Amino acid sequence: EALLAHRCHRRATAMLDLPFLPFCALLGSLGLLCMAMVATWCQHWRGGFSLDGSTRTFNWHPVLMVTGLVVLYGAAALVYRIPRSWSGPKLPWKLLHGGLALGAFILSVLGLVAVFRFHDSQGTPNMYSLHSWMGLATVLLFSCQVGAVPALPAPPAPLRALYKPIHVFFGSTILMLAVASSLSGINEKLFFSLKNGTMQYKLLPAEAVFANTLGLLILLFGMLVLGALARPSWKRPEANSLDSRQ
Amino acid sequence: EALLAHRCHRRATAMLDLPFLPFCALLGSLGLLCMAMVATWCQHWRGGFSLDGSTRTFNWHPVLMVTGLVVLYGAAALVYRIPRSWSGPKLPWKLLHGGLALGAFILSVLGLVAVFRFHDSQGTPNMYSLHSWMGLATVLLFSCQVGAVPALPAPPAPLRALYKPIHVFFGSTILMLAVASSLSGINEKLFFSLKNGTMQYKLLPAEAVFANTLGLLILLFGMLVLGALARPSWKRPEANSLDSRQ
Repeated sequence: EALLAHRCHRRATAMLDLPFLPFCALLGSLGLLCMAMVATWCQHWRGGFSLDGSTRTFNWHPVLMVTGLVVLYGAAALVYRIPRSWSGPKLPWKLLHGGLALGAFILSVLGLVAVFRFHDSQGTPNMYSLHSWMGLATVLLFSCQVGAVPALPAPPAPLRALYKPIHVFFGSTILMLAVASSLSGINEKLFFSLKNGTMQYKLLPAEAVFANTLGLLILLFGMLVLGALARPSWKRPEANSLDSRQ
Repeated sequence: EALLAHRCHRRATAMLDLPFLPFCALLGSLGLLCMAMVATWCQHWRGGFSLDGSTRTFNWHPVLMVTGLVVLYGAAALVYRIPRSWSGPKLPWKLLHGGLALGAFILSVLGLVAVFRFHDSQGTPNMYSLHSWMGLATVLLFSCQVGAVPALPAPPAPLRALYKPIHVFFGSTILMLAVASSLSGINEKLFFSLKNGTMQYKLLPAEAVFANTLGLLILLFGMLVLGALARPSWKRPEANSLDSRQ
């Protein structure tokens, strides 16, 4: 019976031990689905996109934030989990990680520009809601992460080794904040937009079901990235001894 | 110069290496502050508490959720990080962990009862907003965690060892969901409540600053608990070999 239990345990462990690359294909599809859904929401129900300062300018905000601060950010976070990055020169992978992160950062700054421009042209104050406080905290923390990197080649290796766990911890933290900010933003936008007649949010029209589902998919995407980052068997072996080298 | 860098690194590491118990005192104070602030918000600005089905019944919802699903839940999650729990019999610590988690679960179910009762007595539909979908997902996942435990003494040790990382992963996930749900709930409640004249949310009256600050403190509490859970030096040594035993 002990043998049976042992075999059962082994088989279950093997089933749970999904390889990284198929997981990435699944995660990538989920990320693309989130991007397609947020664009569809804004295009089909919220009037599309423009730069005229109207709600059509605001519509860039959710699209840029989900694309940059969630999907592209998640891709950047997972670069060092690719087994091929564990051997050979590290610089190309650093450039890939940095390039994706920089792209994510630029899109999230543009996402902020979109909402500030919308508020300014409508005479609405900026930065009053808890969503805006969370969201700005997310982008500010992200700017610290991005801003610390150009300084990194200069300090001695021990200082860089000291900074690495801080960078890794805030890396996960910022993703959690980005997901939490996205969900509060979708929630708030639906209360703003769905107010009249049979289209009230509380009557759950098609748009509300669609955007709520988008929110849950963003949540699932974030949880999968955080789970992948935390998974010991997907981490680069002997990370501590290797990572302080160039 | 290398020696200086090395000493610098050592000193900085020592500074960052906060012992667990002072951290807990800080975290406990922050948790109590969150509980006091959510109670003050509901008592001072939102009319206090009752069981009559009015908004005074709703007011139990944020208080019970912050107390149960955030603060008490965080305390339950950290029990095995207390160094004294690493030696001697494990059962008392299991009972403490289980008791705190069960208390957190009961308070969060009562928190759901409060909001359902409020909606029903007002004729408002239940479960339409993204906040409600996230929040229910949180409590349902929590019920799976709590529900799995009575079955645990029965299965063989390998199956229990297999379940442990799942329990630990969902433990952190549920806390993230609880914090994200709390923040979207505070944001939504402020848009509902602050609508008229000089008290509009967008004009940032005192209540809005107070409740936004509460939101950020809940976020800080959650991040500190998640950071403490992730910190390798605070984990029970040789966890894998010990934890599958009774």
